[in-house]
Amino acid sequence: MRTRSCSVLCRATTSRGHILSPRRTFTSSLRPRLRTTELLDFGLTNLKVDSDRLWETIHSTAKWTDVSRSPSRADDIRTAGLSRLTLSNEDKQVRDWFVQTTESLGCKTFVDQIGNIFAIRPGLSNDDVPATFVGSHLDSQPSGGRFDGVLGVAAGVEMLRVLNDNWIETEGPVGVVNWTNEESAKYPISMMGSGVWADRISLQDAWDARSVHPGSPVTTAKQELEQIGYLGSVPASYKDGIRLGAHFEIHLEQGPKLEIARQAIGVVEGVQAYKWFTVTITGRESHAGTTDFSNRADALYSAATFITMVRDVAKSLGGLATIGMLTVSPSSVNTVPGEVKLSLDIRHPSDEVLDKMVRTIQSESQTLASAATNTAQGRHHLTKITIGMKEDFSSNAVKFSPEAIRCVEQSAAHLLGDETKIRRMTSGAGHDSVCTNMHCPTAMIFIPCKDGVSHNPNEWCEKVDCATGANVLLHSVLRMDKLRKGRGNVG
Amino acid sequence: MRTRSCSVLCRATTSRGHILSPRRTFTSSLRPRLRTTELLDFGLTNLKVDSDRLWETIHSTAKWTDVSRSPSRADDIRTAGLSRLTLSNEDKQVRDWFVQTTESLGCKTFVDQIGNIFAIRPGLSNDDVPATFVGSHLDSQPSGGRFDGVLGVAAGVEMLRVLNDNWIETEGPVGVVNWTNEESAKYPISMMGSGVWADRISLQDAWDARSVHPGSPVTTAKQELEQIGYLGSVPASYKDGIRLGAHFEIHLEQGPKLEIARQAIGVVEGVQAYKWFTVTITGRESHAGTTDFSNRADALYSAATFITMVRDVAKSLGGLATIGMLTVSPSSVNTVPGEVKLSLDIRHPSDEVLDKMVRTIQSESQTLASAATNTAQGRHHLTKITIGMKEDFSSNAVKFSPEAIRCVEQSAAHLLGDETKIRRMTSGAGHDSVCTNMHCPTAMIFIPCKDGVSHNPNEWCEKVDCATGANVLLHSVLRMDKLRKGRGNVG
Repeated sequence: MRTRSCSVLCRATTSRGHILSPRRTFTSSLRPRLRTTELLDFGLTNLKVDSDRLWETIHSTAKWTDVSRSPSRADDIRTAGLSRLTLSNEDKQVRDWFVQTTESLGCKTFVDQIGNIFAIRPGLSNDDVPATFVGSHLDSQPSGGRFDGVLGVAAGVEMLRVLNDNWIETEGPVGVVNWTNEESAKYPISMMGSGVWADRISLQDAWDARSVHPGSPVTTAKQELEQIGYLGSVPASYKDGIRLGAHFEIHLEQGPKLEIARQAIGVVEGVQAYKWFTVTITGRESHAGTTDFSNRADALYSAATFITMVRDVAKSLGGLATIGMLTVSPSSVNTVPGEVKLSLDIRHPSDEVLDKMVRTIQSESQTLASAATNTAQGRHHLTKITIGMKEDFSSNAVKFSPEAIRCVEQSAAHLLGDETKIRRMTSGAGHDSVCTNMHCPTAMIFIPCKDGVSHNPNEWCEKVDCATGANVLLHSVLRMDKLRKGRGNVG
Repeated sequence: MRTRSCSVLCRATTSRGHILSPRRTFTSSLRPRLRTTELLDFGLTNLKVDSDRLWETIHSTAKWTDVSRSPSRADDIRTAGLSRLTLSNEDKQVRDWFVQTTESLGCKTFVDQIGNIFAIRPGLSNDDVPATFVGSHLDSQPSGGRFDGVLGVAAGVEMLRVLNDNWIETEGPVGVVNWTNEESAKYPISMMGSGVWADRISLQDAWDARSVHPGSPVTTAKQELEQIGYLGSVPASYKDGIRLGAHFEIHLEQGPKLEIARQAIGVVEGVQAYKWFTVTITGRESHAGTTDFSNRADALYSAATFITMVRDVAKSLGGLATIGMLTVSPSSVNTVPGEVKLSLDIRHPSDEVLDKMVRTIQSESQTLASAATNTAQGRHHLTKITIGMKEDFSSNAVKFSPEAIRCVEQSAAHLLGDETKIRRMTSGAGHDSVCTNMHCPTAMIFIPCKDGVSHNPNEWCEKVDCATGANVLLHSVLRMDKLRKGRGNVG
């Protein structure tokens, strides 16, 4: 097989020297080299990933899983899922695989102070040229799926293999990055590794983060990085550490739009803004059998009206709202609840509209509370309802780089040849690309997932969709490489 | 003080013999005796309780409390509350007080197999004549108030004192009963002692009940009865044990109606029917940021619509409905809930209307679930909502005895002289009187309580209201005694 022999050849000829060295790695190859610009200029764009090999990478790396939660070998890979908390022993194993594999494919690897691993394949020009990266994460939710994050890294590795197999030399270096703790399931800081790199989160805060996952020992992230051998020395910084020339990420949609519309590729234009609140609704405990409705201050009944109001507001403004957590006090079958605490997650592609959503919900809450309070003589203190909202977290809307988006869109159009299969969309969830977008051209590629299910062992993507997405990713990187060369960014 | 000297005299002349003995207890008294019929016939009906003494009984017995939860001596008795779980050491102490006090007032006491304590004061006729009882309970909620149950027993003791003080001899015997475990806070069987007596609950089931209160050692009720010395030998049965000629119970309303209407006495006609359900609402977990409303099966949103629907149905049928407990799964800020479990408590004075309420809620639930499920092509399985209801408990409506109600109403009218101060009402909560009503004429007297608050250290009744209620109770017993004599029930 050509693939195998090529791969062996590449390994043999790889310098393993510092990638910024001008020394080239493919100079002694026996085959004529192709550079990106030639490849694209001559229309040699039927370059494709090996679908079987990509699929095998996704599922074989799923053996590094917490077997108490997710089986390492499953009869049915559709339901086996993946349990690989960040910085766990399983995470160490898959990180070791990532380093060994990318090095064997000719990359130089770097581990930074927060454990992000950068694998860089030299280009024709390397001096002071940041690589065009593919990135995502290898950690999972405690009961996660096999595609979230893993697909992105596996497609990056597959890209390296395709480039090697086809003797392609890019104008500038390309790379694959595995970001630490994207999931925040163990250390409750979302997109932690890319966040530190982007200077969105301080290194010290990330190091000091303590495990909150019930099954894990309470350690700090720094302790665990040391323990598994991934506390690197490279600064975790877009300025002083590994610089990124661009960042592309392929991910499953985690929603059902593409599947329902029978579309293959989502060209992600950005990530919607979102805010999290804790809402406290206070009423008065009273006896369920002896307190008629006009004398109740039923915190849960008010919560029910709050929940429906919030959805109405979100719908009217074209956003989303979710109450995911709700607790009732005192929680007794025959006691009218005196207090309810609930979480509120609201989202909108526009920061301005999200702010309007907040203001509308706040004012409607006061209207609700007033309406619930019976002001008839002597009843005010018996029926008084109050609603308070405390903001816990806020993330502004993200707009990805127009030129990176264009790379994705043009690649998708070229590869699919059918624009109805492509959808421009906004990501509902945060991804590492949110952080990279702060400092380099970034875009994302979504592929369909079954029923929109994610963060669940039943998370599923079809093999053909993974391959299509990985092809778009590969071509997007090549287009960006050419673009950067063209405008003098590279070489 | 006449009171004291009389009380001493009564003790000296009390036989302490079996109360069914024809030997009379007051035959050697130095004062002319008054019998009930004479008392009422001659209009000597300004007989009143000693308000200070009643108040002192209520608050002095509150020293037998779990001091870790409720202080035994409080600077402010308005907020001190009472923590006296059934069959605890504190309960033993107050039981000992009850036995000693009633015996010192000339009663014979009996403890049955479930620990109910009956104190019986002989009448003029005692042969095979069941006593007219006052009853309630001395146990409390873990963080209970000083009046719930205690007021009923204390008013009974005060009745005995007033009868003695005034040298009154009733036609038949009268008594006071302390029922075991009315609260069900420790052993989860509501109205347990009176329920066994009424053959509503089997003795074995009650004996085998295990403590569910977190702070209490896990014992069975029978073990605890033995331990505190209140496992009696008298059959716990309305047939073979202590028979009741009638049962009157004074209780705080536990709701705000009397207070708001500035009324002094509630004449309780019965107890509403109620049913408890566990409701399970099933949807589908999905990502809060990536799943738009048309593709959600949000179990909590459906629960919110269920909660408002249930209140609408209850209001339209003149009943009550309460959701007191609600849990969300998986309970994550950014996950659309896949399942909600909630408790449903519905009540109505009529069994038929309550059944109609159940049927209406069930059918409206199916309408809600269907409406929530998006049947657009391919979305049915993504948006399917199901609502299931399981009945956990059912208690039929109770109608108290018309003649006992009349005794209460006539006494109240006579004592208050203002019918606007009296309200006929239905009890929203269960009481021991529900059980006694199955086997003897029963009625209840409600008095106002502050803000309708109960099962709470802030539970509060005014001293004057306690006295007014105790006066109505005393007169109701005398009226019933006369009534029973008149129809040949007594003597």
